[in-house]
Amino acid sequence: MKIIDGKKVSIEILDEIKSSVDIRVSNNLKVPHLAAVLVGDDGPSQTYVNSKIKACERVGFESSLFKFQKSISEVDLINEIEKINRNNNIDGFIVQLPLPDGINQENILSKVDPSKDVDGFHPVNYGKMALGIETFLPATPAGIIELISRCKIDLKSKKCLVIGRSQIVGRPISILLSQNKIFGNATVTVAHSRTTNLKELCINSDIIISAIGIPQFIKGNMIKKGVTIIDVGISRIDDKSSSKGYKIVGDVDFENVSSKVGFITPVPGGVGPMTIAMLLKNTLKSCSQTD
Amino acid sequence: MKIIDGKKVSIEILDEIKSSVDIRVSNNLKVPHLAAVLVGDDGPSQTYVNSKIKACERVGFESSLFKFQKSISEVDLINEIEKINRNNNIDGFIVQLPLPDGINQENILSKVDPSKDVDGFHPVNYGKMALGIETFLPATPAGIIELISRCKIDLKSKKCLVIGRSQIVGRPISILLSQNKIFGNATVTVAHSRTTNLKELCINSDIIISAIGIPQFIKGNMIKKGVTIIDVGISRIDDKSSSKGYKIVGDVDFENVSSKVGFITPVPGGVGPMTIAMLLKNTLKSCSQTD
Repeated sequence: MKIIDGKKVSIEILDEIKSSVDIRVSNNLKVPHLAAVLVGDDGPSQTYVNSKIKACERVGFESSLFKFQKSISEVDLINEIEKINRNNNIDGFIVQLPLPDGINQENILSKVDPSKDVDGFHPVNYGKMALGIETFLPATPAGIIELISRCKIDLKSKKCLVIGRSQIVGRPISILLSQNKIFGNATVTVAHSRTTNLKELCINSDIIISAIGIPQFIKGNMIKKGVTIIDVGISRIDDKSSSKGYKIVGDVDFENVSSKVGFITPVPGGVGPMTIAMLLKNTLKSCSQTD
Repeated sequence: MKIIDGKKVSIEILDEIKSSVDIRVSNNLKVPHLAAVLVGDDGPSQTYVNSKIKACERVGFESSLFKFQKSISEVDLINEIEKINRNNNIDGFIVQLPLPDGINQENILSKVDPSKDVDGFHPVNYGKMALGIETFLPATPAGIIELISRCKIDLKSKKCLVIGRSQIVGRPISILLSQNKIFGNATVTVAHSRTTNLKELCINSDIIISAIGIPQFIKGNMIKKGVTIIDVGISRIDDKSSSKGYKIVGDVDFENVSSKVGFITPVPGGVGPMTIAMLLKNTLKSCSQTD
């Protein structure tokens, strides 16, 4: 079993970004600036946004946080987004999801200027991604591709199973890995909540990308020897031995599969840290495009 | 074996569209108007465009053909497209593909006003399609869905194989059939030129959608009993018994599979006629949206 150390790779990427920022500064070029829009007081959302801002500091980016009350109207939120669109100092921004009930997420995301849409969720960027046109790739799939590339895992002609069809992970990674690109050319199957032969699909796959959020769902008897597993799930389970009373686990029962897998991403420390690194990489790209 | 009669279904749809146009006319509403942009003198492209215009006449649409020399520059072509975008009498238009060498197809398609993009190839419409947001669906996948729906073939939890990953057929149909929609929820695998286990995939599938353009590729020994086959391929093969010297066949060896398949679309007369019907349906929708 080889562990794909997402933490280590993400630090490499952050260091590369920091070097690029240093070079920009010494050439009197603009310092990249990432902004985050946070609506309401959802705990995990605040944590994610804080991590993104902290990562900006680490690489020398400027950052801004636009916080709004849960009670903000959709019209007012759109006005605020349009202000950020017009703010030439901001190179990219994200709208932290989920948005509160009563605000149409689809409508809000379509109002982000595509040239600043570093999450890649605007339909025009999502469409370019699906069409294989250069654009901002959503951060989690981009992070998975970066891990696969840096570990030199060749997906060409491999049987790849993506479990989950979400807009932010399952759908885009399934499209990207089946495209005729250097990191792609896999034969991809997308499984989801209506799939009835999941065990059969797992055991026949060379690569499994799991993004369903069911803790420790994938067991050793569901996989074939040598499989590569990318575990995107993040769940909390009770753990009396921990001082916190819980521990973080993925979709894969790590101990149970360890004797059979080839490559595997751990949780935590696998795909998670890559997501923020790729978001910053998109922001750097956006900033460079305006040079 | 039940033959899915695409010709018959397409006539039903054209009749439905004609009825809608008649109602519009009697209510003094605008008559839908489809335009086609044709560049160069590619024979098959001219034939396709003529069929589209003929179908417009059949349902009572207005139609226009904008023909340009093969030598037109990309800039001039964009200017012409922008004129059509601004023409309030035209509800929808298509740019007939392929475009001549030297013209960037991606760039041209991105210049079509998304609200008139009845082919659904503009990145913003393609992105909406991939995100499951209501939009103009590309005509061939829309036709396949219409056939499946009208034949009441339930794809939920079925193993569906899409052969081919083109932007106009394989990619969009693979996305659509795996979405959580009334016609979807299939477990979809996309096979392509780098897939090495195609025979194994075929024999395990409940539904095969083939869009590779290899004449009579799928044989009886590659499929399981009762499979549904949607054949998108259109190829010419030599046929001395025909006065033309050739005949039109699909990706499937029709005679060879006939004793094993459940449902099958013939070629010609299957998916082909549906494509134009769905294009006109998109044009009617576009026209209705401006009422």
